[in-house]
Amino acid sequence: MTSEGFRRIGIVGLGLMGGSLARDLKRLEDPPHLAASSLDPTDLRGALGQGVLDEACDSAEDAARGRDLVVYATPLAVTLEILRAHVPLWGDAVVTDLAGLKAPVMSLIGELGLSGRYVGSHPMAGREESGFAGSRPGLFRRARIWLVRGAGAEEAGQRLWELWRTIGARPAWTGADEHDRFVVPASHLPQVAANALAEVLARAGIPREALGSGGRDMTRLAASPPEMWMDLLRHSGPELAGVLRELSRLLSETAGSLETGDLEMVSALMERTRRWSREGERWS
Amino acid sequence: MTSEGFRRIGIVGLGLMGGSLARDLKRLEDPPHLAASSLDPTDLRGALGQGVLDEACDSAEDAARGRDLVVYATPLAVTLEILRAHVPLWGDAVVTDLAGLKAPVMSLIGELGLSGRYVGSHPMAGREESGFAGSRPGLFRRARIWLVRGAGAEEAGQRLWELWRTIGARPAWTGADEHDRFVVPASHLPQVAANALAEVLARAGIPREALGSGGRDMTRLAASPPEMWMDLLRHSGPELAGVLRELSRLLSETAGSLETGDLEMVSALMERTRRWSREGERWS
Repeated sequence: MTSEGFRRIGIVGLGLMGGSLARDLKRLEDPPHLAASSLDPTDLRGALGQGVLDEACDSAEDAARGRDLVVYATPLAVTLEILRAHVPLWGDAVVTDLAGLKAPVMSLIGELGLSGRYVGSHPMAGREESGFAGSRPGLFRRARIWLVRGAGAEEAGQRLWELWRTIGARPAWTGADEHDRFVVPASHLPQVAANALAEVLARAGIPREALGSGGRDMTRLAASPPEMWMDLLRHSGPELAGVLRELSRLLSETAGSLETGDLEMVSALMERTRRWSREGERWS
Repeated sequence: MTSEGFRRIGIVGLGLMGGSLARDLKRLEDPPHLAASSLDPTDLRGALGQGVLDEACDSAEDAARGRDLVVYATPLAVTLEILRAHVPLWGDAVVTDLAGLKAPVMSLIGELGLSGRYVGSHPMAGREESGFAGSRPGLFRRARIWLVRGAGAEEAGQRLWELWRTIGARPAWTGADEHDRFVVPASHLPQVAANALAEVLARAGIPREALGSGGRDMTRLAASPPEMWMDLLRHSGPELAGVLRELSRLLSETAGSLETGDLEMVSALMERTRRWSREGERWS
């Protein structure tokens, strides 16, 4: 499999996401020329030495200049900051980013009049380990990739869709606002729920290693990088607060039922969520 | 490896726990004679046919009579109901149960004056699939097994400890009250948190398959069997209510911080739980 017509790809940022994407692209049958920049020169040299890259760029500008495809694998705040300045570097390139919220980027792109070449990506993939050291081939395998197309970016969108398919991911179209409304409960809420649960366990003096497999699953996200999440929560905070309050109320209601010995409420809750767990692949 | 002197073992109940234990015991180098009873005759015939058992018993009484070791792999309520009636069947047998709470059982055993032969077990192992169909060899491998010894059960305890070791588990001594205080936050809280999170996602119209790996981890327990949990929550309800309220308050505080744009609070929470996640194997 080839890189679907993208022969020169530049990746800005070589962390977990950018590094994993580079690893997958270099393993294609007919890999593209791959350039990347990173704030960490050691990561960059390491990637070049491991054959993950063809070209280590001294700056984000160098990674973005003269490519067919530019991928911003940077935190959302950084992406929003550098996109505008990078416009003159893009030539005819298709441009994407991998940030976990899409409306802030798509809105800036619309403002810049560059929607025709821009397709936002959000890979629903991750690990607790962050940075290039945490990157690995196959991170995106079978992962849902939400794609948001700028107005007029049909062809660019099709090419990017196929690129994600060639590395084994599952792209799907969505709208920027629709996407962001979805990820707040689907992704931001489980994250903060894991942090809050871990905090209660820590206060009770219970170390993670003392948990069974269920408790360990429920606290795996507690190790996620705070800086990455602050970058997203700066935008999603108010919406997230709404679903956090809903979860908080439900837990408090459940506590009330347990206090009064009303096990029926808890049993019905468990029956409902068991059915929910078993519903089929409606979204795949 | 052998079954540590237990040559005739009877297992009452052949669900996930009893079935998995039987599978591990029959794979020992010098396996014991293994008898079991089950409410489901199909499971019992299946286990016999697969060579997981030597003897399929028509009743719990038959499984408990004339053994060196009797294992109650039944729900807590059932165990509490049948233990008293089974006393005359035990002869010199060592007796254990696998229930997730230990104080109710140990208190009954003390009352019956049988502490010298009784050692409660609680394997911190499980799966979403329940029943014999969900059982599998190796379920207890590397799993913590909390052991609670009745007064005077030193020798019985040592033998049971060694039996758990031979199948690759990690037994550890604890007290009944201490154990039950521990499992409420460590096991019952993550369970109900998973149910509540799943309920909020279900209400938002988000199917489990639409989640990323983090969200899926956070909702795996939502498929746990409600009947098994009702059996435990009947005893742990009031204590669980306390930690549920604590989690509820923390989520509500976090929502408040996000509403006012106070990201520092959320960042500090994430930093603390990240450190907690990385603390060493203090309990192993």
